[in-house]
Amino acid sequence: MKKFFVTKSRRVRSTSFSSRIEKQGVKSYTVYNHMLLPTTFSDPEEEYDHLKKHVQIWDVSVQREIEISGKDAHELVQLMTCRDLSKSKTGGCYYAPIVDNEGKMINDPLIYKLSKDKWRICIADSDFILFAKGILSGKNLDVKIFETNIDTLAIQGPKSFKLMEKVFGSKINELGFFKFDFFQFKNTKFLISRSGYSKQGGFEIHVENVKSGQELYDYFFEIGKEFDLKPGCPNHIERIEGGLLSYGNDMDIGDNPLECGFDKYVNLESDIVFLGKDNLKKIKKEGVKNKLMGVQINAKSVFITESLPLFFKDNLIGELRSGAYSPKFQKVVGIAMIKKEFCTLNQKFEVKLNDNNCLGEICNLPMK
Amino acid sequence: MKKFFVTKSRRVRSTSFSSRIEKQGVKSYTVYNHMLLPTTFSDPEEEYDHLKKHVQIWDVSVQREIEISGKDAHELVQLMTCRDLSKSKTGGCYYAPIVDNEGKMINDPLIYKLSKDKWRICIADSDFILFAKGILSGKNLDVKIFETNIDTLAIQGPKSFKLMEKVFGSKINELGFFKFDFFQFKNTKFLISRSGYSKQGGFEIHVENVKSGQELYDYFFEIGKEFDLKPGCPNHIERIEGGLLSYGNDMDIGDNPLECGFDKYVNLESDIVFLGKDNLKKIKKEGVKNKLMGVQINAKSVFITESLPLFFKDNLIGELRSGAYSPKFQKVVGIAMIKKEFCTLNQKFEVKLNDNNCLGEICNLPMK
Repeated sequence: MKKFFVTKSRRVRSTSFSSRIEKQGVKSYTVYNHMLLPTTFSDPEEEYDHLKKHVQIWDVSVQREIEISGKDAHELVQLMTCRDLSKSKTGGCYYAPIVDNEGKMINDPLIYKLSKDKWRICIADSDFILFAKGILSGKNLDVKIFETNIDTLAIQGPKSFKLMEKVFGSKINELGFFKFDFFQFKNTKFLISRSGYSKQGGFEIHVENVKSGQELYDYFFEIGKEFDLKPGCPNHIERIEGGLLSYGNDMDIGDNPLECGFDKYVNLESDIVFLGKDNLKKIKKEGVKNKLMGVQINAKSVFITESLPLFFKDNLIGELRSGAYSPKFQKVVGIAMIKKEFCTLNQKFEVKLNDNNCLGEICNLPMK
Repeated sequence: MKKFFVTKSRRVRSTSFSSRIEKQGVKSYTVYNHMLLPTTFSDPEEEYDHLKKHVQIWDVSVQREIEISGKDAHELVQLMTCRDLSKSKTGGCYYAPIVDNEGKMINDPLIYKLSKDKWRICIADSDFILFAKGILSGKNLDVKIFETNIDTLAIQGPKSFKLMEKVFGSKINELGFFKFDFFQFKNTKFLISRSGYSKQGGFEIHVENVKSGQELYDYFFEIGKEFDLKPGCPNHIERIEGGLLSYGNDMDIGDNPLECGFDKYVNLESDIVFLGKDNLKKIKKEGVKNKLMGVQINAKSVFITESLPLFFKDNLIGELRSGAYSPKFQKVVGIAMIKKEFCTLNQKFEVKLNDNNCLGEICNLPMK
């Protein structure tokens, strides 16, 4: 497959760690929220293997954090998501589909509740801030909305717990899943959450002070050898096997959260007020027409740049949206939007990959 | 400067012409509106020279077109821009700053008026559609908003007029600047505007039917030899010299349109209703604190990935946001946001480029 260089500019922002990962051998980038996200250092399969055994630090500063603060912050945040946040707690992280008036997916951020009056929305790849500002223009709400300068480091992999303990002390391992707290390194307190875009366990460190964050980054590599620490990035193979969805790849503004399998985050019974609620109620009542599913395909490689049609006996049954070769399953694994009537496990299909007709079948997410 | 590959995916969309320009030797891309925009085929200076003498076809499909239609379409479009559209005409293109409640820049699209009830907003690099959808959520307006599948080809350069005449007939050259109409190639009508992101003259062809658009693209190269037609892309040197601003580079959500020099598109005297009007009135009354200006710097190369501070006798006078070496001026040319009190022509400054202190001075845009 032909390769092309990426052109940097002020518009395609570098992060506080770009110069470091470039010295460490990053080979390729994607652009995410107008910012550079590393995508390869060595080889995706090698990185997959390393991530599942050891620990990596990822520069995921592209997970931009939009802060919403003020007396009416809770009201505005709730208005944008179908997930019921009425029982949310300070110190909690909430994965929350953001939906528009029609109940369509706008973003799927992790929402951090710092207090009732202060939230940080840690966004996927779309300008969530413009949606929030648009809503605000028509409402008399007492809130302030802005994009913070926070850059994020993810520490991911089974050895992340021991590495983090060495730097921040044993208290870090008392942090519950999807909880956050503040931990000190030298003279700086960092907001750290037990979260991250892998199923291998780990943390995300939210860097507000650039210099302290860079010192911390360098310190990790000073002491990280014993854990076989390497720089890394979200791994496409691992995240597909684990059923971690990617906004813009697996789902977009054309899909609703029920099609994406987010049923438990679509709280239609409670009396909370959010956009698109009536539409989602209607969709739920009528039943969705499509559903995101895992797929496995008998092929040795795949390179997805657009949706690929899936067929069963001349019927178009859905489209493949993400895919990668999995060393574990020795097949191509993928995520596909499938017509409801074909959403049964082991449903067979054909798909053309690299000009070859390949056989595949539907499976659950995450893949066992 | 170290180079990195770009990783493609469904999220970083290809266009209807990507496979063609890749066969024609595109070397690098940037990502713009979640889509690939070519940035180099040979060398920016060689391409600059060719653009000023001959004609190029650019795949600028990243200029995504958001359609707003319905009874209240005019009202919604006007609400989002400080430019008075009350006298706008069907068949006209309107460069229009989009501003939020505070009067800050959200986007700077070219707006196409297809009829009073149907507009296409041809956007710069931000998710304008989310802003529009956000506004809509709070208002009872009869409109439909969606991103079209339109891909755009720009035909730019002094020979564009003769090339276009050969394909579409002499009527194409009766089209006024910033006007559009429909022109036929084989069995397909294309919306064509006399517009484009260069100062060398030309057209933009809005491709709704992929197959016809690809046939047209191939036909251009079949007959284009006599005009020395080449595939190309917006040229950073030419656009800076010409004072064509780039959203995300020269200005962003932190700036207001008066700082960007869009005074003639900020219509505060008429009684039209738009967001941020009161704030902009206040800013206008008090006077802006900063202003975008051209700069020329005694240096042979520049590579901007973030704003660079400009100093005059220990005073920080502003920041450089875009820059390129200009063969014409034999200097680095750039666009900088300058503190108002230093916005005088020929104001000197110092800036560090590639670790060297360089001398520069402020100039007008476009540069003469």
